[in-house]
Amino acid sequence: MSESAYQKLHARFREAALFRSTAGVLGWDQETFLPPAGVAWRAEQLASLSGHCHRLTTAPEIGGWLDEAAATVTTPDSSHTAATNIRGWKRAYDKATKLPVSLVEEWSRTTSIAQNVWAEARKKSDFIVFQPHLEKLVSLARQKADAWGWQACRYDALLDEYEPGARSAEVATTFAALGPQISAMVQPATEKAARFPKSLLAGHYPIAAQQAFNREVAAAIGFDFSAGRIDTTTHPFCTGLGPLDTRLTTRYDEDDFSSSLYGVLHEAGHGLYDQGLNHQEWGQPAGEACSLGIHESQSRLWENHIGSSTEFWTRWLPRAIDYFPHLAGLTPEQMTGAISRVQPSFIRVEADEVTYDLHIILRFEIERALIEGDLDPAGVPDAWNEKFKTLLGLTVPDDAHGCLQDVHWSFGLFGYFATYTLGNLNAAQLMHQARQSVTGLDSSLASGDYAPLLHWLRAEIHAPGQRWDAPELMRQATGETTQGQYFLEHLRGKFL
Amino acid sequence: MSESAYQKLHARFREAALFRSTAGVLGWDQETFLPPAGVAWRAEQLASLSGHCHRLTTAPEIGGWLDEAAATVTTPDSSHTAATNIRGWKRAYDKATKLPVSLVEEWSRTTSIAQNVWAEARKKSDFIVFQPHLEKLVSLARQKADAWGWQACRYDALLDEYEPGARSAEVATTFAALGPQISAMVQPATEKAARFPKSLLAGHYPIAAQQAFNREVAAAIGFDFSAGRIDTTTHPFCTGLGPLDTRLTTRYDEDDFSSSLYGVLHEAGHGLYDQGLNHQEWGQPAGEACSLGIHESQSRLWENHIGSSTEFWTRWLPRAIDYFPHLAGLTPEQMTGAISRVQPSFIRVEADEVTYDLHIILRFEIERALIEGDLDPAGVPDAWNEKFKTLLGLTVPDDAHGCLQDVHWSFGLFGYFATYTLGNLNAAQLMHQARQSVTGLDSSLASGDYAPLLHWLRAEIHAPGQRWDAPELMRQATGETTQGQYFLEHLRGKFL
Repeated sequence: MSESAYQKLHARFREAALFRSTAGVLGWDQETFLPPAGVAWRAEQLASLSGHCHRLTTAPEIGGWLDEAAATVTTPDSSHTAATNIRGWKRAYDKATKLPVSLVEEWSRTTSIAQNVWAEARKKSDFIVFQPHLEKLVSLARQKADAWGWQACRYDALLDEYEPGARSAEVATTFAALGPQISAMVQPATEKAARFPKSLLAGHYPIAAQQAFNREVAAAIGFDFSAGRIDTTTHPFCTGLGPLDTRLTTRYDEDDFSSSLYGVLHEAGHGLYDQGLNHQEWGQPAGEACSLGIHESQSRLWENHIGSSTEFWTRWLPRAIDYFPHLAGLTPEQMTGAISRVQPSFIRVEADEVTYDLHIILRFEIERALIEGDLDPAGVPDAWNEKFKTLLGLTVPDDAHGCLQDVHWSFGLFGYFATYTLGNLNAAQLMHQARQSVTGLDSSLASGDYAPLLHWLRAEIHAPGQRWDAPELMRQATGETTQGQYFLEHLRGKFL
Repeated sequence: MSESAYQKLHARFREAALFRSTAGVLGWDQETFLPPAGVAWRAEQLASLSGHCHRLTTAPEIGGWLDEAAATVTTPDSSHTAATNIRGWKRAYDKATKLPVSLVEEWSRTTSIAQNVWAEARKKSDFIVFQPHLEKLVSLARQKADAWGWQACRYDALLDEYEPGARSAEVATTFAALGPQISAMVQPATEKAARFPKSLLAGHYPIAAQQAFNREVAAAIGFDFSAGRIDTTTHPFCTGLGPLDTRLTTRYDEDDFSSSLYGVLHEAGHGLYDQGLNHQEWGQPAGEACSLGIHESQSRLWENHIGSSTEFWTRWLPRAIDYFPHLAGLTPEQMTGAISRVQPSFIRVEADEVTYDLHIILRFEIERALIEGDLDPAGVPDAWNEKFKTLLGLTVPDDAHGCLQDVHWSFGLFGYFATYTLGNLNAAQLMHQARQSVTGLDSSLASGDYAPLLHWLRAEIHAPGQRWDAPELMRQATGETTQGQYFLEHLRGKFL
């Protein structure tokens, strides 16, 4: 029997996944262990791998195979493995081949320059320096969106890169309703959180003890160390290097164990998702993560809903005291309170759980207006500062503490920020549903048995891969697409 | 100007070097950090990379480029960069393309099976189990030699794989003269070494202290940690992953610091060679190591000539006592004596510096006779045991302690063993020459200043890459090709 179009696609994209995950190993090594002088050769290696992957996945014959496979492969429904794969491969092929070479080159040149200029502009806290580059980036991003194609609005094409299936009008409505309700919580939550100052945890936390404790917690929530590891980097991340090779990283502060512990809980949340994908389908759309907003829901669920709860500390405080004896005498409530601070501030990456999404909503609204042409890049600082005052009640002192703080736009990342808040909303919605679907969930969590929750997440979220897009995956798991109310309930319960 | 054949070759083999070194990163990661469950996917990644490299470097157009480059590129002499590269690329292309596909496939199948059978046979200590596989391996190795081509004798074609330019008749003459002279030293050296028992070093050596001490020693001899690292593996090795990325590994025994220290000195010797290759030409023949026998000379030089000398311990014993206080009271002579044991034994990998090469000479003579057809595989155990008695004076109790102890032949490695002894001979010859060429060498070594020696090795051995083959490189550096006398003088001076 001659090889079918589907088999050819399968073999080709499997080959690409092998090379892509090889680039993943090189990237991981670069962050963890690469000697400093080795960086230049590493860049050449990655460029060669990237070129090879690009050629493998954009070769003209793939278009024909996709057409043939779409015409000949019949599946019971669109969530069948073969249908999922063909849809995913076509999506990737279209994304890669619809952009004219001239646009790809200009994009690469522009972002490369913009990154340096942004760093300079932030240092000087002077938006004017960055403005012409932002204008160019916005213009090119609009061209990208047009080349990819869109229906309701142009921004959808960019959002779709990170959150396939999401519609920005719907996201905008959800976020617009969410903002004021979170804003109203900030002051009372700040006051309540002040009852348990962080100084309750003052002390020395040796790195080796932190590592041992983190490892025990990560294993307890289900992270499989026979198929994964934890290493140290400046910026924590999680990366899947193969179907049974998931690597987390964290960073250590010997004055504050919570930085590494919650880093590990966050990254292990991503890692559990990665380990829960179907190993046999790893690297195929059916065995790949659904979206960034779903991925982030898994990290935030373990970090915020499980790890920073009183139930968690009721179970884990005695063990923490074994490792850090000076914590003896604290109650689980004090511990939970001390690590759950609330304090409005200017910088997103330092924001607490209550105010974090206000930072995101602001960015989402600004970049959507930029892409839709409703806001001129020159107007960004004013728009930023005004929204910041409304949402967080603070007056932005300068651009470095305002619209120049994030690297994202200089990389051309438009459509990315929203996935952080979608992740938080999804996490709360999934926990709400899990409490209804998993019998005795709260008592198993209280006893430190995380298997029932993980089992449910595996079935509902991890195993499906890209069988459904994110809105539909949420509907299948919880009965409705992403909503704001569960997250608001969570914040109220935890902080008010 | 259109791209010349030389430029096309250069670009193609540079691309191949990027992918080959990428495979190196994956291999290194597999030995050091890969989670156990990740092995299967890693094997697939490596197979894809290997296939891609093979296609890149064996494409038919390369034959034409090689012919054209050979005809059009004129260089002042054969050691010029371009001439060196063309020669090296042609050598690699011929080696890869001269073997018929059927032979490559049969080789792969046969060695894969033979490795398992060998492990089984060694466990049972029963050569008969392995014999038919050895017969097949020898027959295929002969076919390989014939496909590659040879002049004086068939074994040369196999030796050339690891030691380009070496002639086995010459090696055989050198080894045949060496064997009896080393044999004659074994008994007196054993008696003398017994004066300083290893028990002088008994004590606990924490791994962290060993790591710090080893690192200090490696940096002192010139290993550049900004372009390299040391990690932990079961089997120590050194691998170059790029022009400025050289990775060593060692293993730790908390009862015996010398195992990790001499492991590091040995691998750092390889690493210094790697770091001394021309960075700009890395991955091209002009920037690649000359041969295994030259590579091994660098590791043995630092391990045996520098690291296990009284001068070394005069400098380093006080520092060792800082890390391992229970060593206080030892003299440098006692330390040197305690780590320089001599004791004839059956297993090569446990052999001391005096008897080690007797193990190699035996293997070289047997495998050469196998390939030349002068010895039937069925006769290997008798030949082994007889030679062992003559060279080491011991009666081999069984095949596991005799001809079944090494994995090499089951992998099809014929021609490899000789490079260990060539390395020892080269090391002694180079040290002899360095003492004549480098003013004040002994006093700089005594003061712990290793830069003058490294500087000389860099110029004479490292920087030339493959500009000359190993015999010629030794002639350029020392005035003669590899000889036995300097090694014998070294052994006599150190052990008698």
